[in-house]
Amino acid sequence: MLTVHHLNESRSQRILWLLEELGLPYELKIYQRDAQTRLAPPELKAVSPLGKSPVITDGDATIIETGAIIDYIIRHHGGGRMQPDMATPDYDSYVQWLHYGEGSAMLPLMLRLYVGRLKDAGAPLEPRISSETANHLSFIEGHLTGTQFFVGDSLTGADVQMSFVAEVARAQGALPSYPNFNAWLDRIHARPAWIRAIEKGGAYALGR
Amino acid sequence: MLTVHHLNESRSQRILWLLEELGLPYELKIYQRDAQTRLAPPELKAVSPLGKSPVITDGDATIIETGAIIDYIIRHHGGGRMQPDMATPDYDSYVQWLHYGEGSAMLPLMLRLYVGRLKDAGAPLEPRISSETANHLSFIEGHLTGTQFFVGDSLTGADVQMSFVAEVARAQGALPSYPNFNAWLDRIHARPAWIRAIEKGGAYALGR
Repeated sequence: MLTVHHLNESRSQRILWLLEELGLPYELKIYQRDAQTRLAPPELKAVSPLGKSPVITDGDATIIETGAIIDYIIRHHGGGRMQPDMATPDYDSYVQWLHYGEGSAMLPLMLRLYVGRLKDAGAPLEPRISSETANHLSFIEGHLTGTQFFVGDSLTGADVQMSFVAEVARAQGALPSYPNFNAWLDRIHARPAWIRAIEKGGAYALGR
Repeated sequence: MLTVHHLNESRSQRILWLLEELGLPYELKIYQRDAQTRLAPPELKAVSPLGKSPVITDGDATIIETGAIIDYIIRHHGGGRMQPDMATPDYDSYVQWLHYGEGSAMLPLMLRLYVGRLKDAGAPLEPRISSETANHLSFIEGHLTGTQFFVGDSLTGADVQMSFVAEVARAQGALPSYPNFNAWLDRIHARPAWIRAIEKGGAYALGR
């Protein structure tokens, strides 16, 4: 049985969504952020020494890192669903978007989150953070022209990975300038599996 | 023929290293950072609209994102080398480290790089950046106890991906506190293929 170690208001929400899309059984263990620091509680270090979420366990395996978890669940338990055939170029694109979400697109959004805590003292970094955010969101926007999904013509793990990018961009007020990406997120949030995942994972301000 | 669009002093140096380890033929196109902004030159936007390096082209395929490029080269051109058998748990670990390098470990290092430009004004973020850096480097250090490579008993793409984390941590002065990770990087830098890649890619201050 898969176990998802879920932290409230975090990257692990999309793992619940993936499992609901695939209709897989799983055990859910919910952890709460420290109210002051917003960090994960120390109990998560008992699952993986890094102490972060998402992390899943599956028999003897413990897997961290959202992109790797999405790949693992789909490859081991998806039965061919939600990933392109490995013999096609779509598979290469799928892997690329799985890496791109957290490997590149999130960086300027995380910089804004952290540097924002400095208030006016962070102002010198604002032009660079804004231009890098626009560069990434424009790249995604162009990719989504005339297509409903990141890869191919159906939902894949690439969409699951990219949903957090869209949600954080929306929370920072950047998403409305990118109508394709904005509409894509609206479609994701309307999916029955996404709604079921929210009901299971608890409060998720980024889902608004 | 594979073409690597290489930016000086960047993440793409390790793609050259990978290709040298595999002994593959490739075309090398070198781009120089803007001396003022340290950003990639606009010519890279002709290769991929994101305009960043590394990016490779291979026939009709254009692949961005270091982790995806490493996976692509090894999967399509590695002939079974430098990745574990997909049917083994080592493959899951391999995918995890490929994602972890840029998806998590680089974040506090990039925060230090950016916030450092604020000088004293960035001081309020220093404790968090330091504790997150220590958390990640301690996690890696523990993983490398008693092993020479990130996955299994030979060099894989996971080592290639993690090399940039080690190099940036060393440049920031953090690496000597983590003897396993520090010694691992010394061994990487002594490899003939790594040295050949430096000769081809040009000046690489992070390789010191």
